Amino acid sequence: MIIDSIKTLDIERNQTENVGQNMYQLITKLYPICRSITGDGVRETLNIIKSFIPLEVHEVPSGIEVYDWTVPKEWNIRDAYIKNDRGEKIVDFRNSNLHVINYSIPVNQKMSLAQLKEHLFTLPDYPDWIPYRTTYYKESWGFCLTHNQYLELADGEYEVVIDSSLEAGYLTYGEYFIAGETTEEVLISCHTCHPSLGNDNLSGISVAVFLAQHLSKLQNRYSYRFLFIPGTIGSVTWLCQNEAKVTNIKHGLVLTCVGDGGKFTYKKSRQGKAEIDKIAQYVLANSGKEYEVIDFFPYGYDERQYCSPGFNLAVGCFMRSPHGSFPEYHTSADNLDFVQPEYVADSYHQCLSILQILENNKTYLNQNPKCEPRLGKRGLYRAIGGQAEEALNELAILWVLNLADGEHTLLDMAQRSGMAINVINKAAIALLKHDLLKEISA
Amino acid sequence: MIIDSIKTLDIERNQTENVGQNMYQLITKLYPICRSITGDGVRETLNIIKSFIPLEVHEVPSGIEVYDWTVPKEWNIRDAYIKNDRGEKIVDFRNSNLHVINYSIPVNQKMSLAQLKEHLFTLPDYPDWIPYRTTYYKESWGFCLTHNQYLELADGEYEVVIDSSLEAGYLTYGEYFIAGETTEEVLISCHTCHPSLGNDNLSGISVAVFLAQHLSKLQNRYSYRFLFIPGTIGSVTWLCQNEAKVTNIKHGLVLTCVGDGGKFTYKKSRQGKAEIDKIAQYVLANSGKEYEVIDFFPYGYDERQYCSPGFNLAVGCFMRSPHGSFPEYHTSADNLDFVQPEYVADSYHQCLSILQILENNKTYLNQNPKCEPRLGKRGLYRAIGGQAEEALNELAILWVLNLADGEHTLLDMAQRSGMAINVINKAAIALLKHDLLKEISA
Amino acid sequence: MIIDSIKTLDIERNQTENVGQNMYQLITKLYPICRSITGDGVRETLNIIKSFIPLEVHEVPSGIEVYDWTVPKEWNIRDAYIKNDRGEKIVDFRNSNLHVINYSIPVNQKMSLAQLKEHLFTLPDYPDWIPYRTTYYKESWGFCLTHNQYLELADGEYEVVIDSSLEAGYLTYGEYFIAGETTEEVLISCHTCHPSLGNDNLSGISVAVFLAQHLSKLQNRYSYRFLFIPGTIGSVTWLCQNEAKVTNIKHGLVLTCVGDGGKFTYKKSRQGKAEIDKIAQYVLANSGKEYEVIDFFPYGYDERQYCSPGFNLAVGCFMRSPHGSFPEYHTSADNLDFVQPEYVADSYHQCLSILQILENNKTYLNQNPKCEPRLGKRGLYRAIGGQAEEALNELAILWVLNLADGEHTLLDMAQRSGMAINVINKAAIALLKHDLLKEISA
Repeated sequence: MIIDSIKTLDIERNQTENVGQNMYQLITKLYPICRSITGDGVRETLNIIKSFIPLEVHEVPSGIEVYDWTVPKEWNIRDAYIKNDRGEKIVDFRNSNLHVINYSIPVNQKMSLAQLKEHLFTLPDYPDWIPYRTTYYKESWGFCLTHNQYLELADGEYEVVIDSSLEAGYLTYGEYFIAGETTEEVLISCHTCHPSLGNDNLSGISVAVFLAQHLSKLQNRYSYRFLFIPGTIGSVTWLCQNEAKVTNIKHGLVLTCVGDGGKFTYKKSRQGKAEIDKIAQYVLANSGKEYEVIDFFPYGYDERQYCSPGFNLAVGCFMRSPHGSFPEYHTSADNLDFVQPEYVADSYHQCLSILQILENNKTYLNQNPKCEPRLGKRGLYRAIGGQAEEALNELAILWVLNLADGEHTLLDMAQRSGMAINVINKAAIALLKHDLLKEISA
Repeated sequence: MIIDSIKTLDIERNQTENVGQNMYQLITKLYPICRSITGDGVRETLNIIKSFIPLEVHEVPSGIEVYDWTVPKEWNIRDAYIKNDRGEKIVDFRNSNLHVINYSIPVNQKMSLAQLKEHLFTLPDYPDWIPYRTTYYKESWGFCLTHNQYLELADGEYEVVIDSSLEAGYLTYGEYFIAGETTEEVLISCHTCHPSLGNDNLSGISVAVFLAQHLSKLQNRYSYRFLFIPGTIGSVTWLCQNEAKVTNIKHGLVLTCVGDGGKFTYKKSRQGKAEIDKIAQYVLANSGKEYEVIDFFPYGYDERQYCSPGFNLAVGCFMRSPHGSFPEYHTSADNLDFVQPEYVADSYHQCLSILQILENNKTYLNQNPKCEPRLGKRGLYRAIGGQAEEALNELAILWVLNLADGEHTLLDMAQRSGMAINVINKAAIALLKHDLLKEISA
Repeated sequence: MIIDSIKTLDIERNQTENVGQNMYQLITKLYPICRSITGDGVRETLNIIKSFIPLEVHEVPSGIEVYDWTVPKEWNIRDAYIKNDRGEKIVDFRNSNLHVINYSIPVNQKMSLAQLKEHLFTLPDYPDWIPYRTTYYKESWGFCLTHNQYLELADGEYEVVIDSSLEAGYLTYGEYFIAGETTEEVLISCHTCHPSLGNDNLSGISVAVFLAQHLSKLQNRYSYRFLFIPGTIGSVTWLCQNEAKVTNIKHGLVLTCVGDGGKFTYKKSRQGKAEIDKIAQYVLANSGKEYEVIDFFPYGYDERQYCSPGFNLAVGCFMRSPHGSFPEYHTSADNLDFVQPEYVADSYHQCLSILQILENNKTYLNQNPKCEPRLGKRGLYRAIGGQAEEALNELAILWVLNLADGEHTLLDMAQRSGMAINVINKAAIALLKHDLLKEISA
């Protein structure tokens, strides 16, 4: 049983291409939906995810107090446009849901260009892109459009319609729990509140969905909790309503912006030297890819809440290009071209490597701690001669025996020995089989 | 009240020029006096300082045992000269008090040039400078003169007069205590035993006097103890006679050689990582000036005594050019030209910055530690858009909230966030006003 | 008595040349003997060592269980050769004991070249060298020869004789214990199981013998235990049969490959920051020689057993060129030319420096911890002036006083002050003489 719980750390990559294509198909399907921090767009999104994993969907009523916050009114939108005085729709929500500032209150009125302009937002530096804006916590309205569109606006009377509703309703989020051998949990969190944006954060959703699907088929040491929540208010709500469960969370990752072609970025947890931090760093350092590991800072995604001082959870943030570091961020250019199958697939595999090492990163006790055991009589030692590869395994065996003092995890052994963790893991498996090693229960 | 105790860390520099001129005037006034480790020169010096701050003057009788030392006899000098056989005063104490070796016993005799030469000291490498020498603990006498003077000495009989006295008397020192909100003390110590030398240590005296004057007008968190003492025997005496007070000293600075144009030098306390060490290092690193931070070594000024292993106080030494590193050191060239108003003023301001940060370097508890508080409803968050500067303050607010776990001082927050400490301080003030932060009492 | 126990750290090198020659003579005498992990070759070797130091020889019967191991049968060999069909001895044990694989079972048979070749081993890359091979734990036989010899073998029938015995007997090892002032021990261990090989490990034996001889004449603080044992099985046996003594071992060195001209190599103990590790590093860094300090790894010599997790002793390994890093390793080229008197002498002196510092690396308490003591009245301070060298000593005195807080050893003082340890040591001796310092008993 102990032996069975050790899985090989070699990732089966035979399905890599399929995984990338499958993830991209999910992103493509979710892309057109107008999501926000509440509303039917979130429900539709979670429903699609349900076809992949048995998500539990929660509805939290507007007005509920969650720590210092209040669950907001639910926002829904059916249509929105701006018509010029010739009756032409010059800005149309149906072309892009980014055209309407997210959480805009209903509007239906005529106004001059000057009045209208107070509600228009563009990106002069990127005149073909539509910016993405929100007004969650201030009742207001507005339109986003390309700067080129904006420049063409002629004087005259405009008809402005936002057919939205902002009413008591629910905050909707999805949760999927996979029970493991222990009650200790790994949290995987992503946000579901962005409309037609690909990298931020359909990419994160897709990696989370496929990690969940993969892990659900395995017998895991840890329990896994996947959260599909609106940013900030979602994690605040979940933490407040599930405080008793928080102590079970031993490790975690926030997934965001994992679909672009930029280098990998791991933002450490506030703790900075948590096991998840060490493992993420190790995996990226051994990935053969360009990467950067950055320190925690209290800005970004829901790691802000998980790492608030009252929780201080070991939750890092796994990204490719960090938010704000690429010009497409929060614009219509963060689209289905910006995200590519190979990039989400690669992110998925790095995350899977992190979780596989986490699962196997155990601590052992040498059962023959005084002097080395005789490896030869157990077939663990070459007799005369021996090939280089065998000698390598033999050295891994000696390292594991030497460091199996209850104070070194497999990762510690890999790092102190300079040997690859899967070689160290194989040595540990061999020693467990010969009763020379015993796993220490946490 | 809590809020009031937080002062802005921006230093009002409007008086910079005045401060420099005022300090330099004090130095100029003290310069001609012939000080030593005891005697009327010290009394006269302390009397002048009394016109700036209400100094308490202590007189400790000769012969008193202080730890391994004995308070020495009091030394006074009225006149001294060497006359050649034509009756000309070729060396005259009235021209420079450095001409007589400090603590020389009385002499009145005639002698040959050869005999005289055994008592003469010069600096061949700097033939126009008079060296400064002492003979505190060995009864002897001698004269210091320029090497050029020395070379002109012709054979013949010389009349040598030192009209000094070395008799039972007192060791005189000054002390000024400013009571603060707490009994915890900051010690500022400088030596008053050098005759006409500017950098070593009239500069230190002047910075101490003006710091004391400034702090006396404020409501301080810490109590401040200023000592104006003879080097070594003064600190030994004070420590021995005030042992019960020593445990109150939590931080301290020895001030010396702070008036020359060299780069700043901070010599760490023996502890090496004391709060004063971290703050001094931070202030100099952010001063925009050239500086060096050096490790403690058991040589130099009174930090030797404060940092002896039986006390091991968190007392560093603040200097510009360290003693011995400039050729003018302990010569007549360490004069009123070598010290300049702008240099003492700059030293004064760096010390003030250190003390201001020390005063404000508190530890806080986030009163909403689970998730972030809603900054928007408190006006601490831009709604839509927002300028770069405001965004910066917002980030400072998030950092302070995140690190207000009772284990980070303001300086720790500044260093972990990479933000300026006054920006961090402003954020803390704002959060205290909104009851989102609470100061932890020490 | 305390003072007497402090020896000067300056090594008397007047006998350097003699020591080197004497060590080399011992190596030369031991070289021809056919040693193995058991047998008469070991006995003969220990007998020769007995003429230098009063070694106690232990005989442990075959079959005894020692931890996971069993003491093997005793192996002895009288003769061995391969004759061609013309009756010529083409490989002859009497020419080199490396020709026979160590622990070969008896053989006396005729065979074809093809059959013979399955038992022949050569080094094609070094065609003039005979490899050294063993078959301790698998009953087998074979010959080693130069590749050039091998290439000349013609078809035909060969007569193969190995006149050896492998029977119940004893494992023989030598032990020499020098009692010191305390029961705390320094372990010096070397292996005695290699036949005609010079660097590996007659060099280690010779350094151990001469260190033992030197230390036996001194009054030492530590007790010293010298082990002359077969590799692996010897240390396993000793540790198992002397477990009660193991806790006394506070420091130790395994000596091997110390006779070649390569740079010094110190392999740290598993602890990594043990006192012996710090001292060895300090000695080599100050040796003026090329050196390398490497981390512990669980491969190599008997440090593998001493540093197994059940013991985790502070035992490092002192070498010049590490095993496997030079082509002569485990070949006939590791001979009396490869090892030279100057190299073993140099190794001896570095080891002696390590042990001398270890002996003197004490912790002291300043007896006048509050402020500095008055050095002048004790003649420990220059009066007026003073030479550079004296000033240096004075600084050493101040450092020792400052750091004599019971938490700094002499080495810590040397490293924090940046002063040479013998200068620091002299200062400590002077202070002990004046009762300003007191040694702390461990």
